[in-house]
Amino acid sequence: MVRLEKIEYKPRPVRDLLIEIKDLSELMIDLAYSAALFHSHELAEEVLELEKRVDTLTYILGMSTMLAARDAEDAEALIAVYTVATAADKISDAAADIATIVLQKIGIHPIVREAFEKVEERLARAKVYPSSILAGYRLRELELAAKIGVDIIAIRRKGEWIINPEEDETIDKEDVLIARGAPLGVKELKGLAEGTIQKFED
Amino acid sequence: MVRLEKIEYKPRPVRDLLIEIKDLSELMIDLAYSAALFHSHELAEEVLELEKRVDTLTYILGMSTMLAARDAEDAEALIAVYTVATAADKISDAAADIATIVLQKIGIHPIVREAFEKVEERLARAKVYPSSILAGYRLRELELAAKIGVDIIAIRRKGEWIINPEEDETIDKEDVLIARGAPLGVKELKGLAEGTIQKFED
Repeated sequence: MVRLEKIEYKPRPVRDLLIEIKDLSELMIDLAYSAALFHSHELAEEVLELEKRVDTLTYILGMSTMLAARDAEDAEALIAVYTVATAADKISDAAADIATIVLQKIGIHPIVREAFEKVEERLARAKVYPSSILAGYRLRELELAAKIGVDIIAIRRKGEWIINPEEDETIDKEDVLIARGAPLGVKELKGLAEGTIQKFED
Repeated sequence: MVRLEKIEYKPRPVRDLLIEIKDLSELMIDLAYSAALFHSHELAEEVLELEKRVDTLTYILGMSTMLAARDAEDAEALIAVYTVATAADKISDAAADIATIVLQKIGIHPIVREAFEKVEERLARAKVYPSSILAGYRLRELELAAKIGVDIIAIRRKGEWIINPEEDETIDKEDVLIARGAPLGVKELKGLAEGTIQKFED
């Protein structure tokens, strides 16, 4: 049932590949924890999709570094790059393991929930109510990172997930936001999304 | 040269083991990135020490879950616990891979540094100057998490590292703090430690 595709080498700058692999792997850990905390099958499935993507990117990065290395000095410089990529790949595998628990309906044991308590403080799922002051604004305009120290890591909109949304993305009414940040910021975001807070606190 | 020790089974609650494994693995990723960003051999060595500890804890947790499972229902409940622990163990291995680059003096390639740029925004190394208002206070009293959304993940004091310091720990003059938080909070902590900011901003 596993569909195996030939991975074709498409040249892309090593820099871009490494940044994408690293950012995706960090995002995946938070998404996997979110999937477990909020019992979200869809989010768990997104994690598995992302894991395939990280695998492919890591292969391409491996090929790119091989082609880039012309002498021993190049090879020495590039091995650190490849090592960081494979470390990020391991992290993405670990995220996929956690997502798989959710999909297999094994259930999140209370002990697991306790271990995730600390994580819960920095992750939030918040539904955007029609009365929310966030609705209709682009992420860029809201400056959530600067104002309340919170990043939107995913948006669920009408059954589709937008993972790692662009700054140009507009928040709609009824969106479900998955956010990451310090406990206070995460709490403020929930209030802003649900309409119980009607302005940014200074 | 590798010293292998017999791992003895010492009973400990599965809950405590899982929480320690998960917390250590998350801490290790940040410490490994800090080691790379700040070129710290000592911090990299601490990551490798922690990796051994996580390995041992994961073995003990495996043995504990085996002993705890009396029937199929127990086993179903406990497999999720063990899966989360092994996922955390993979994450700690990835952190150790990154720490090893630092120790092998391979050097941090500019491409790796770029990939770490985002990380740099949420990690800071700050030296506590004699004029700092932080000096002489316990972490509990400073309430850094609540006030500026920042956690102190490690303290270097006279050549020794205190990893994941307790809330009772007192900050001394000349301490080097490794902190994690949102960009604004991390910036404020640096100012507070270096004495350029003399009170908490409201």
